[in-house]
Amino acid sequence: MIRKYTIGHPIATESVVVPVPAGEGPLPYFSLDEAEKSLSLGLGDNELVYGLGETVRGMNKRGWEYISNNTDEPHHQEDRRSLYASQNFILIFGEGRVKGFYIDTPGRVSFDIGYSHGDELKIRFAELDADIYVLEGENPRSLVREFRKITGRSYIPPRWAFGFGQSRWSYMNADEVRAVADGYEKAGIPLDMIYLDIDYMDHYKDFTLNEEAFPDFEAFVSEMKQRHIRLIPIIDAGVKIEEGYEVYEEGLEKGYFVTKEDGSDFVAAVWPGWVRFPDFLNADARRWFGDKYRLLLDKGIEGFWNDMNEPAIFFSQDRLNAVFEALSDYKGKNLDLAKYNELMGMIWGLGNSPEDYRSFWHNMNGTRVRHDRVHNIYGYNMTRAAGEAFERLSPDRRILMFSRSSYIGMHRSGGVWTGDNCSWWSHILLNLQQMPALNMCGFLYCGGDTGGFNCDATEDLVMRWTQLSIFTPLFRNHAAMNTRRQELYQFDRIADLKKFVELRYALIPYIYSEFMKAALGDDMYFVPLAFAYPEDERAVRTEDQILAGESIMIAPVYTQNARGRYVYLPEDMKLIRFRAADDYDEELLEKGDHYVKAELNELLVFLLRGHVLPLAKPASCVEEIDYASLTYISYDSDPGQYELYTDDGETRI
Amino acid sequence: MIRKYTIGHPIATESVVVPVPAGEGPLPYFSLDEAEKSLSLGLGDNELVYGLGETVRGMNKRGWEYISNNTDEPHHQEDRRSLYASQNFILIFGEGRVKGFYIDTPGRVSFDIGYSHGDELKIRFAELDADIYVLEGENPRSLVREFRKITGRSYIPPRWAFGFGQSRWSYMNADEVRAVADGYEKAGIPLDMIYLDIDYMDHYKDFTLNEEAFPDFEAFVSEMKQRHIRLIPIIDAGVKIEEGYEVYEEGLEKGYFVTKEDGSDFVAAVWPGWVRFPDFLNADARRWFGDKYRLLLDKGIEGFWNDMNEPAIFFSQDRLNAVFEALSDYKGKNLDLAKYNELMGMIWGLGNSPEDYRSFWHNMNGTRVRHDRVHNIYGYNMTRAAGEAFERLSPDRRILMFSRSSYIGMHRSGGVWTGDNCSWWSHILLNLQQMPALNMCGFLYCGGDTGGFNCDATEDLVMRWTQLSIFTPLFRNHAAMNTRRQELYQFDRIADLKKFVELRYALIPYIYSEFMKAALGDDMYFVPLAFAYPEDERAVRTEDQILAGESIMIAPVYTQNARGRYVYLPEDMKLIRFRAADDYDEELLEKGDHYVKAELNELLVFLLRGHVLPLAKPASCVEEIDYASLTYISYDSDPGQYELYTDDGETRI
Repeated sequence: MIRKYTIGHPIATESVVVPVPAGEGPLPYFSLDEAEKSLSLGLGDNELVYGLGETVRGMNKRGWEYISNNTDEPHHQEDRRSLYASQNFILIFGEGRVKGFYIDTPGRVSFDIGYSHGDELKIRFAELDADIYVLEGENPRSLVREFRKITGRSYIPPRWAFGFGQSRWSYMNADEVRAVADGYEKAGIPLDMIYLDIDYMDHYKDFTLNEEAFPDFEAFVSEMKQRHIRLIPIIDAGVKIEEGYEVYEEGLEKGYFVTKEDGSDFVAAVWPGWVRFPDFLNADARRWFGDKYRLLLDKGIEGFWNDMNEPAIFFSQDRLNAVFEALSDYKGKNLDLAKYNELMGMIWGLGNSPEDYRSFWHNMNGTRVRHDRVHNIYGYNMTRAAGEAFERLSPDRRILMFSRSSYIGMHRSGGVWTGDNCSWWSHILLNLQQMPALNMCGFLYCGGDTGGFNCDATEDLVMRWTQLSIFTPLFRNHAAMNTRRQELYQFDRIADLKKFVELRYALIPYIYSEFMKAALGDDMYFVPLAFAYPEDERAVRTEDQILAGESIMIAPVYTQNARGRYVYLPEDMKLIRFRAADDYDEELLEKGDHYVKAELNELLVFLLRGHVLPLAKPASCVEEIDYASLTYISYDSDPGQYELYTDDGETRI
Repeated sequence: MIRKYTIGHPIATESVVVPVPAGEGPLPYFSLDEAEKSLSLGLGDNELVYGLGETVRGMNKRGWEYISNNTDEPHHQEDRRSLYASQNFILIFGEGRVKGFYIDTPGRVSFDIGYSHGDELKIRFAELDADIYVLEGENPRSLVREFRKITGRSYIPPRWAFGFGQSRWSYMNADEVRAVADGYEKAGIPLDMIYLDIDYMDHYKDFTLNEEAFPDFEAFVSEMKQRHIRLIPIIDAGVKIEEGYEVYEEGLEKGYFVTKEDGSDFVAAVWPGWVRFPDFLNADARRWFGDKYRLLLDKGIEGFWNDMNEPAIFFSQDRLNAVFEALSDYKGKNLDLAKYNELMGMIWGLGNSPEDYRSFWHNMNGTRVRHDRVHNIYGYNMTRAAGEAFERLSPDRRILMFSRSSYIGMHRSGGVWTGDNCSWWSHILLNLQQMPALNMCGFLYCGGDTGGFNCDATEDLVMRWTQLSIFTPLFRNHAAMNTRRQELYQFDRIADLKKFVELRYALIPYIYSEFMKAALGDDMYFVPLAFAYPEDERAVRTEDQILAGESIMIAPVYTQNARGRYVYLPEDMKLIRFRAADDYDEELLEKGDHYVKAELNELLVFLLRGHVLPLAKPASCVEEIDYASLTYISYDSDPGQYELYTDDGETRI
């Protein structure tokens, strides 16, 4: 059961698309403290709190404070309070009835979940304006489904987007891209996508091409497509200020950029240097920007990723000027530590400054709104602009779209990747733990940068991480500039890596079926054990294993130099220890604790009793997967019981 | 068996104090590449590499590159290559004979341990000058003992230093210190030490006192000592440049500071602002600086911690001037992103700059040596200065000393703490994993900042971390400025935290005995399972459990919201689940895998068969521990078998 309670005068986020009856009386469960602008609620010893989508730490969010304040955060350490997304949906369960709360407010809000006091949840608002949806029921997963029904169906990508993609910031020109395709081809590793990071553009100008580096782009797109590889370009939020640049000139003329309070230009720097930010909260601007994707669609592009849409700000013109003004006073003086710290503070404070976010305004349906009040729905509306445009520009065929920044509601327009993670072993586990939390909020097409974006990757890390990503709908290897190359063919154990990617392709009939069933049924693809076995006190505290679809549980190894790991089985399961799609051991394991061996070239899948796992023959790309020749691994079940979902993989549904 | 091989013309570090016979013929095992200045060696599939002391990642160092280059590194993320210490001793075992290598060179050297290629160890030198000690034998632990014999006996602190200490950067005045003592007293939590961070000094000047904040320091020291609390002040490496400041004036006059190549002043900034660095590599300067500790000893101080002795450099005068020169050119110009990045690069590059470390020189026994060639033995020699002075100034009684920066050899003069860790759950595990590696290199008196130094701690983190630190010889809670207060009495569950600290005190007869036996026998106090059970293929890959002394294995919970953990027992053991020193369960567990429950107020100890664990009655400080009333928990053994080490805890031995 869902009821809606409204506090103050919230700005509509349009994340909920189905009418929800208003609750009677005051907001239940919480104590409201108007002076402190907070809501609080006691937590029982055995209650767990799940949710908040893409955040740091474990699945059970107790013991930290999370702040919904979309932030370009490059390292994702345990102490971070904000990442790129705001997904304010939580479930509390473990004692009595299951409770769910969706705090729908586009501004800053924090969730102190047993951080200040272990037995208290306190939600603090920048402004006490929110629609609060209260859910109650018996089962966490069914509450998720109820919640998902009111927020609308999840984005569905084309099936080829379930293939493997390679990315790097950046492949600087067409020949570098060809070399990557060649590297994979030579290694015999399937590949469906190569991503183009910011350097494919002309001076980082959205919807332009660096003609020197990528001459005759349309022919190049076509050349790669003949190799079954789609190019996926990035689009950034900021529009470069440059006379004669059509997107800039048009946006300026039509008044589609955000402005300062007095109507003057808000100018900030991101990759292109000085930019203006499109006002994605203005429906007309959204339509205008969305239509620009056509420039690349017309060249044969079928997918995009939206980046820097928190929006990230390196510095604003005003603040940089202020810093240089201050710096000029320092010169020649005897600098002491206090002055040095002052200087460092100023320089540090330039990026993503709250002051900047308070200094520009939007036009929402004719009403001027200061940015910080709606900060968390900016990226959502950028991706919505794209999604709405794709429905117009490509009414029949699906277009791939995923975004860095998000808010609930955006899940209707695109997926997400989890941003700039690091080549750290702990980030394999973080990647795993974020997946079901994202699914709760409707983001089904998601994944992390396999091998890690920042820092240098090692072969063993990439192997273990790949063993996880084989199961994530978005499966992409991506790395930052100045880091060690981590395309799979760069390592010594290419043969093993090839087998892993081939296994992914063998699993696509299953992964795609399970994804589609989740999307069409407003359900989860990745399910935490706590949702599947809420009565099992061990299962509810198992945070390094998840169900992937209806048939299997996965439990990746995420410790360096380990040759196995512990696994808790909430029921009898069949262990499948894969070395390749056609090379695996099977072993029946009883409910309970097991130490399971897994050499570096082995990955663990646990098949649930009464279920089957379909496997296709090796294929070099998604299009070539032969659905007619599936084989099945089963455990007290028969293949006929498995509901395989098939469609042409590209028609909109 | 140990043999010494010399390559090039190494600068003597004096870390080895016992003559070692020279090996015959060329250096065994390694291939030398003179052009690349590297040594390489193949690693077998089942070989493990342990060692390197205080570094990131797990106990088995395979899969990363470590660079010995002492660095003030505040976050200790997985991707870091250098921390504060250089401890170039590694053991390779797991196939055939055990091999050990000590690469004795005071300059930069890197250990690529299966980072570039999984099956290769490559050691790269800045300069191909090193004494290389090659050890061979049958057992890793016995090789450690052999190595330790040639590097001399480990530092032995007074017994009171095994009590609990509270620290914070900083308790700003005597009343704040009193409030901490009061807080602990009121909570009934034992406490033996309060640490004074940099603000007790007059403007961060070594061996001075802020008389306003700490009036009549001697009386204050005495007042606290009457409460059984010793004050432990910090000493930094840099000496403030200030006319009339005795230490500075004297050092200048005697020529005891490092200088630039032309003999002019090398001036850098650290906490006091502009400083000069004492030339700790000069024996006369060492003696001079060491004697200064007397100023505080004379006021009743009995222990110190040496900090910032990598040496950390915020910026040098020369480089800061160059930056400001460059900045002045920017003003008024249309700054683009390239210029912004240039600016950020300059500012970033100011701290701990390799260029600075190449620009000052030492006087080693009359020979001028550029700092970068001997960088890694600077902190070692600062602490050696103190250790040698204490032998002169306090010939009968032990003085507490531990250091941030270190090199093998320094273990004779002091212990170490593991520097500026973070309030991250992963750093509980890192703390555990660093302990045996430090023990290998002779550092027995060691521990990490309990609860984490940087970032905000939570109650559950502090509770779990305390459960580990109960077993580390150095047991200190410490936190940085601007972080959440984390003195134990600040939390809700004070009663549980009190029981943990009381348990520590109950265990001191055991911990001190085991520490002393390790120190006097050139042995380890913390032993990895891989050393204790080298034939057990599961034990050698267990990196989150360690033996602490001869009787017990510890296996702390280091996962948030967990209510237990997996444990591998290489032999039958008796589980003791402590809630307090006088409140625990006992359970016999068989060799093998176990999931063991441990609520937040429970900590796990595993008693080895044939061993006993002595426990004292609760005591409010180390002095009051009643050795006459020990009780014993035993497992197929009797208390009479336990060799309790006792002494007066303060006389030098």
